[in-house]
Amino acid sequence: MTLDYHDQGHWANNFGQAQSPVHLTGTPAGTTALTLTAPYRITQVAADDTTLRLFGTGAMRLDGRAFQFVQAHVHAPVEHQLDAAFDLELHLVHEDALGQPCVVAILLPVGPADPALAAAMATWRPGAATPLSLDLTPFFPHTATMYRYRGSLTTPPLTEGVTWCVLAQTEHTVSAAQVTWCTAHFGANARAIQPLNARPVLCAQLDLQSTL
Amino acid sequence: MTLDYHDQGHWANNFGQAQSPVHLTGTPAGTTALTLTAPYRITQVAADDTTLRLFGTGAMRLDGRAFQFVQAHVHAPVEHQLDAAFDLELHLVHEDALGQPCVVAILLPVGPADPALAAAMATWRPGAATPLSLDLTPFFPHTATMYRYRGSLTTPPLTEGVTWCVLAQTEHTVSAAQVTWCTAHFGANARAIQPLNARPVLCAQLDLQSTL
Repeated sequence: MTLDYHDQGHWANNFGQAQSPVHLTGTPAGTTALTLTAPYRITQVAADDTTLRLFGTGAMRLDGRAFQFVQAHVHAPVEHQLDAAFDLELHLVHEDALGQPCVVAILLPVGPADPALAAAMATWRPGAATPLSLDLTPFFPHTATMYRYRGSLTTPPLTEGVTWCVLAQTEHTVSAAQVTWCTAHFGANARAIQPLNARPVLCAQLDLQSTL
Repeated sequence: MTLDYHDQGHWANNFGQAQSPVHLTGTPAGTTALTLTAPYRITQVAADDTTLRLFGTGAMRLDGRAFQFVQAHVHAPVEHQLDAAFDLELHLVHEDALGQPCVVAILLPVGPADPALAAAMATWRPGAATPLSLDLTPFFPHTATMYRYRGSLTTPPLTEGVTWCVLAQTEHTVSAAQVTWCTAHFGANARAIQPLNARPVLCAQLDLQSTL
């Protein structure tokens, strides 16, 4: 390998080999702790015509690493593909103290309507940010299969270095009408599946803990 | 914001806003633990004509997060700029269980020759990987100012999402002749300073611990 330090402007910048979403497989081995350290208090539904986006505060530790909640939003149909079928994907976007992102993705199957999503949908207005007081803390399931891998944001700028924590669970459900509400307002907002390449996927049972 | 999910192939992929190296400033606030959990045993000097590159095993926890050592290499002149002057930068490249990278950069001023670097330089052969038995564990300084920020690899593919831990220290030194040896064999292999943009830099005193 030869590297020309006089020609740095032409160095290849080969991003794009660790993108999201991906197809996830695996059998749970052991448990991984996700510890809620501050309540997930939603205060605003964003003026956003690509997704139902919620702003607020919250915090958690994932496998010992501290993250602050930044925003939540939904994708319908789901972005991450598993062998089991899910119908809506809630993304809880976090950042650590250096600004490194972690997205907790909660996959929801169709069933009874979810009351928290119902409140957010009823509050959403096109083109106007709207106040909403909603506690999302109970949205973290007590039982789930957790898939962790490194990937990217699924919308531009598609930034890599994201710690993904995808939770396959059945405690929370979304109604078919709620899924239809999302696709009617935002279109089908799922990015296509990306190649996993050589990335490891860690599969474990969620060990939900709380200091609240 | 409108996002056309039928036009995903043309989504902007605006990487390159969180690149390394950067100019680092800051006054230490508190301490951050770096815990050695497996000895840094070098077993091979790589066949590499861009840097003195060392392969082996080792492990550490940074602020509670577990990383495995992958390889070490040197840059002369230094890549990260501080208000104080340093003359050689040793990069200890690590990965966590998901493959997310962390580079511990040890900045060395000119002074007495370093015996570990001397052994590696004496072993290096152009075009041939060469065995070397060397314990790099003592290279971690006991006293240092630690700068942490998120950045990128400093050589192609310039991948982002790297946790940087830059240690400004004076316990270890490099001789002027050793710096000259590096630039004579590898050229000046420092990437130009990149814009910090909006990234936070955490500055603390190193709290070096060990389970060895």
